[in-house]
Amino acid sequence: MPVTSAIEIQQKAIQVLQADADKILKLIEVQMKNLTMPQCPLYEEVLDTQMFGLSREIDFAVRLKLVQEDTGKRILQELERKLSELNQLYQEQIQK
Amino acid sequence: MPVTSAIEIQQKAIQVLQADADKILKLIEVQMKNLTMPQCPLYEEVLDTQMFGLSREIDFAVRLKLVQEDTGKRILQELERKLSELNQLYQEQIQK
Repeated sequence: MPVTSAIEIQQKAIQVLQADADKILKLIEVQMKNLTMPQCPLYEEVLDTQMFGLSREIDFAVRLKLVQEDTGKRILQELERKLSELNQLYQEQIQK
Repeated sequence: MPVTSAIEIQQKAIQVLQADADKILKLIEVQMKNLTMPQCPLYEEVLDTQMFGLSREIDFAVRLKLVQEDTGKRILQELERKLSELNQLYQEQIQK
């Protein structure tokens, strides 16, 4: 296994987590653009599963002290904010 | 954040993954001991969820080159073997 420095590992950890968060963000945005389609419960489950997976990755990185707890929380909170925005749009859609 | 060496991070990564795998193993063993109880689908879902969470942690560790791919696979395969053993026991239980 190639030896890298602890600093490099920490930087890579943030990059990987952010890349995974961005993938989920894209899923949410795709869903937002397709609001005219009927709400698909499977889609919600996919998002839930992806969020859970990411939270486990973040938790693991925090336990290894690769990422600060606050940084990890911020990544998740940003996604949760976006998700609740999506749910808000759905509610408005239903009421129309 | 305290600075540790890359080697220490790799060692810690294996420890954390193994500890998480052991937790799942305990869940499986508890379930094996309680085979006289009716099979609980929720329990299966808990195990599935935990396995998925662990696989994401392992995948993350491999991507950061903290753990070799083979090592990660071995941890998961050991649990899968134990899980199929549990399922086998259930099948025998049903046939009685």
